Amino acid sequence: MSKRRLAILDTAARLISQQGFTHTSVDDVIREAGLSGKSHFYHYFPSKEALGFEVLDRQFGRFTDRGLAILREPMIEPLDRLSLFIDTLVALQRERDARNGSPFGNLAGELADSHEGFRQRLDVVFERWAQQLQSLLWELHDQLREGVDTARLARFIIAALEGGMLMTRVTRDVAVMEGIGADLKRFVATHLRDGKLLLRTVAERELAQSAT
Amino acid sequence: MSKRRLAILDTAARLISQQGFTHTSVDDVIREAGLSGKSHFYHYFPSKEALGFEVLDRQFGRFTDRGLAILREPMIEPLDRLSLFIDTLVALQRERDARNGSPFGNLAGELADSHEGFRQRLDVVFERWAQQLQSLLWELHDQLREGVDTARLARFIIAALEGGMLMTRVTRDVAVMEGIGADLKRFVATHLRDGKLLLRTVAERELAQSAT
Repeated sequence: MSKRRLAILDTAARLISQQGFTHTSVDDVIREAGLSGKSHFYHYFPSKEALGFEVLDRQFGRFTDRGLAILREPMIEPLDRLSLFIDTLVALQRERDARNGSPFGNLAGELADSHEGFRQRLDVVFERWAQQLQSLLWELHDQLREGVDTARLARFIIAALEGGMLMTRVTRDVAVMEGIGADLKRFVATHLRDGKLLLRTVAERELAQSAT
Repeated sequence: MSKRRLAILDTAARLISQQGFTHTSVDDVIREAGLSGKSHFYHYFPSKEALGFEVLDRQFGRFTDRGLAILREPMIEPLDRLSLFIDTLVALQRERDARNGSPFGNLAGELADSHEGFRQRLDVVFERWAQQLQSLLWELHDQLREGVDTARLARFIIAALEGGMLMTRVTRDVAVMEGIGADLKRFVATHLRDGKLLLRTVAERELAQSAT
């Protein structure tokens, strides 16, 4: 991909995260990316919408590589991977001073009702995220209680994390996200046959973390 | 309050829910509310911001009266009240065909990073909501396991519900919200001394509901 095209995508991602997709105009992108004018922009992207979709694709690609990849890490036990994944999202909120939150949640909040193209693409994003979680839960199959609906549990995990990132942005308090992450681990542990043991392990781990 | 003022607030609430606060202009409100012009608008509200704050206040007032009121219903057992409250939010998503979601979550998604005035007001909204949940959890005090952090649990409940409403808007599938509501009840039950019994009760209740 050309450097210029990448620069436009990065600029658009920043603008969309700051002011939303609707409020980001092609003129904003042209100005902020230092393009010479509209024909310069349309040389790279057929429309603002096409640019927006590609921004979302790239964000999900990055999330897949850096975030969801943890869920597939072969050298780590499945439950530890899930725990690490949750910790990663908490750490991200900490690094960002509780700002920004999830690009998918933000776009969903803005566009789920008003823009069918984005709604469908976000539906795919959350579905793929849920599938990754579900694959991990299948690996845990032998340890899960009977009758656990892994698809539903995967969706619950995403909802709690998305809601947590939203609450954290509002409170500007990373402790909110930390609490939600810890509670989510507890909730997952209640789906295990030996839930009590794992509940203790999670609690011990937290204790060890808080001591460092 | 004058009829005209109310009509402006209702119009603004609808426009903000459809296109966001940032994208809703005073001109939009003037046109949609049938006002004669800017001076007519400014006769009622000093600024678009003041109008937006009052829209949020009214939405939280309505939520307090119709939603949170269930949490304080003196004739119903605390745990049943919490269950009914969750069911109410699920039913609301069903009625709305999974559109719109939470006005607080939507505003938070749009403005938490960019508008300090809205961020602070939304922080108060979520704090009051959490306090209502916490009061109910305090009522359950004797039934709760030792060491339950009621403030944290209250925040978790809100995060899961907000995340659930967001996911439901994206999937357009109320079953997602139903699953999250049911899982949330299960999670609350794990905080009770006699969690197993209440887990069964919730499951039985679901069974009874699905049979009707």
